[in-house]
Amino acid sequence: MSNTQLASVLDRVDADFDKALERLFALLRIKSISADPAFAEDCKAAAKHLAGEIEGLGFNAEVRPTAGHPAIVATAKGNTGKRPHVLFYGHYDVQPVDPLNLWHRPPFEPVVTKHADGRDIIVARGAQDDKGQLSTFVEACRAWVNVTGSLPIDLTICIEGEEEIGSKNFVPFLEANKKDLAADFAVVCDTGMWDPSTPAITTSLRGLVYEEVKITAANRDLHSGIYGGGARNPIRVLTNILGKLHDDNGRITIPGFYDGVKDLPADILAQWKGLGLTAESFLKPIGLSIPAGEKGRELIEQITSRPTCDINGIVGGYTGEGSKTVIASHASAKVSFRIVEGQDPGKIRDAFRKFVTSQLPGDCTAEFLDHSNAPAIALDWNMKPLAAARDALTDEWGKQALLIGSGASIPIVADFKRTLGLDSLLIGFGLDDDNIHSPNEKYDLKSFHKGIRSWARIIAALADVKK
Amino acid sequence: MSNTQLASVLDRVDADFDKALERLFALLRIKSISADPAFAEDCKAAAKHLAGEIEGLGFNAEVRPTAGHPAIVATAKGNTGKRPHVLFYGHYDVQPVDPLNLWHRPPFEPVVTKHADGRDIIVARGAQDDKGQLSTFVEACRAWVNVTGSLPIDLTICIEGEEEIGSKNFVPFLEANKKDLAADFAVVCDTGMWDPSTPAITTSLRGLVYEEVKITAANRDLHSGIYGGGARNPIRVLTNILGKLHDDNGRITIPGFYDGVKDLPADILAQWKGLGLTAESFLKPIGLSIPAGEKGRELIEQITSRPTCDINGIVGGYTGEGSKTVIASHASAKVSFRIVEGQDPGKIRDAFRKFVTSQLPGDCTAEFLDHSNAPAIALDWNMKPLAAARDALTDEWGKQALLIGSGASIPIVADFKRTLGLDSLLIGFGLDDDNIHSPNEKYDLKSFHKGIRSWARIIAALADVKK
Repeated sequence: MSNTQLASVLDRVDADFDKALERLFALLRIKSISADPAFAEDCKAAAKHLAGEIEGLGFNAEVRPTAGHPAIVATAKGNTGKRPHVLFYGHYDVQPVDPLNLWHRPPFEPVVTKHADGRDIIVARGAQDDKGQLSTFVEACRAWVNVTGSLPIDLTICIEGEEEIGSKNFVPFLEANKKDLAADFAVVCDTGMWDPSTPAITTSLRGLVYEEVKITAANRDLHSGIYGGGARNPIRVLTNILGKLHDDNGRITIPGFYDGVKDLPADILAQWKGLGLTAESFLKPIGLSIPAGEKGRELIEQITSRPTCDINGIVGGYTGEGSKTVIASHASAKVSFRIVEGQDPGKIRDAFRKFVTSQLPGDCTAEFLDHSNAPAIALDWNMKPLAAARDALTDEWGKQALLIGSGASIPIVADFKRTLGLDSLLIGFGLDDDNIHSPNEKYDLKSFHKGIRSWARIIAALADVKK
Repeated sequence: MSNTQLASVLDRVDADFDKALERLFALLRIKSISADPAFAEDCKAAAKHLAGEIEGLGFNAEVRPTAGHPAIVATAKGNTGKRPHVLFYGHYDVQPVDPLNLWHRPPFEPVVTKHADGRDIIVARGAQDDKGQLSTFVEACRAWVNVTGSLPIDLTICIEGEEEIGSKNFVPFLEANKKDLAADFAVVCDTGMWDPSTPAITTSLRGLVYEEVKITAANRDLHSGIYGGGARNPIRVLTNILGKLHDDNGRITIPGFYDGVKDLPADILAQWKGLGLTAESFLKPIGLSIPAGEKGRELIEQITSRPTCDINGIVGGYTGEGSKTVIASHASAKVSFRIVEGQDPGKIRDAFRKFVTSQLPGDCTAEFLDHSNAPAIALDWNMKPLAAARDALTDEWGKQALLIGSGASIPIVADFKRTLGLDSLLIGFGLDDDNIHSPNEKYDLKSFHKGIRSWARIIAALADVKK
């Protein structure tokens, strides 16, 4: 790869940036909310629109049906079979916009505006997750094709429309389209930077066990004046059991929960400590000051390498205005566990259920619902494309790209490995304050611009990776 | 009082019963739901209708405005000032009917139908609470007036329209109408029988301290993938604190909570034990089998003479269908205490608040809302009208009337004492399975019929009480 060629591509990215922004806006205007059936046609429209854009870059791009919203499969016409073959993944669907009244502008009317601290930001639902992010890759391809007439790597692009609702129809789709999706490795643009000036590649992801538990006592709601003191109160039972999930040191008390969990290697821990993630930098913006996880662990361990348990929702009895002297017949909670390498999701689920049922007093029953059961992912730090991409990112940002763990789960990474046999390279330009899944989602203009430039460089670097 | 006169009155009750039922139905058809402003005109209509009925019995009956729904004040024209003067209290307002889909019939179209076990029952919203109950007294007056031309006692009737929403405007109304409400003692028909064949007079009522607590951590909802393990979870904090409200023996752990609580006198406890209230009889109908209160206490103590704590509602985070990996910024619960004689409601409230705040981890705040703060009531078992009424009830039902404690609160009883200086006699004919405040509210036809007969006898008995 000649350096002058890459320099021309990067110049082209800069020169074309205003138009790239216009193209992103066109995509952001499509209300492709996958969770709500009322927007099914918008999802189709987004798939069609994106396929058209990709087709224009010299791809055979098809919108293919799934059991849910359609997916795009696009194969570069210039693929040779002799160069490193990348499968790029993104998703065109977005989260619902509720609560709408908390948005400062209509969520599907994108604008560039100023953040309170002066940064230029793109505001719209999907500005980051994942329309903005996937567009950084597509725009980098455009610059390559426009300058050199083709791409320096073999490339298949696959973009789905149900990531925000669990990709349940996408896994069978991968199975059914295995042949067309064959590649050497996958590249996913759905993760974040370390901070606004430090790029990162995500090499580990926590898994997710998500359970719902419902505890039932009496066969109907009761008047607490008549039955209070005599009848079992399921909210009391639920709070009593859930209140014991952690000990005073923040450790999870479920027997066997930490089985198989390893401490970080000393060198990695030392490296992470050097990153300077502090309560001041991480917690202060959300109004907190004290790391809430296991005592004796670094904050960065608490949020990335240690398993956690959170109660994500709880409800029971009377929750309206004012008061009602009721003893509810049932109460329920949603409880999730971020799990790490070495933990088996099935065992964690069973241990949680046993923890609850073993503490149930007489007259109570517990029902469970399994919402997620995904293992943690640890990528191979020695994977060749990773080193290449890391150097390319470092060149673009003028700062060493970090290899980081993410506290979140991206189940598709496990699906790519299991279904297609592919390792994934997780690179993205999101920031912690992007408000994804929340009102006023944004993407830094700098993330979008330097994201495109980063991919332009990474594509060049990957072209040089030995097959 | 001549026995033949009373016998004639009782005969009249029986002869007139079908028409009494028709009159009750007319009252039940009026949708006097006090909680919903949409039914304000219906509340007025109910007051007017009832005042008209009472006027017809030889009263000066007025519908008087309050700051909310109006109240009725009716003074018998035959009052002499020389006979025992009774202030009768009831309420014409009813609870909302939601959830409407659980009713087997329209709630404001009363019918007499068969209970599953063969009992004849009146089904409608308000059939018992309190339109059915107050009508037993009004119909007894009617029988007396129709047979003898007047009442044997001095009587003032006061019926309010906001009992179901806390009587907040009724206490100032009592203050403002003190002179017109002067009497020797109050009679309230809003309580229950011991069982379907055993009449009862309620002589103690638990008080009610009802608190709402809201715990806040971060300044917004967080993604548990990014912040899980590092950020404080207010639902975890709430469940942890509420889960410690009771120890393993069912005792409330708030320091000082039991200060001033006395054990029942041995003779009363012995009498109560003899009543044969069992888990089988009391808990089985609601699907339970194990008394859930303090270990070592009789079930009847747990539900009447012992203070209790119930969590009446809890809510936080995501409570919809499916799952959301959110760490909520706040969570809240409604917690109520049934308190007994010797406990100070203000102290209990303060102790609860201290219990919560003393356990708050850093970064969390707690806000409290005071929904109720009413002391327990213990009536004088030696009050003269009580013995008279007890004998009258025993005569009607052929079974010794019991003096019982109620687990519920009737704040108006404390208000009558404080505002008007009156002790109250609490007599009613409700049963535990009447579904008050719930769908399919009912009143046993026998309760209505023998309730009227009971009051006819009690009125005769009270006439003989020395002033």
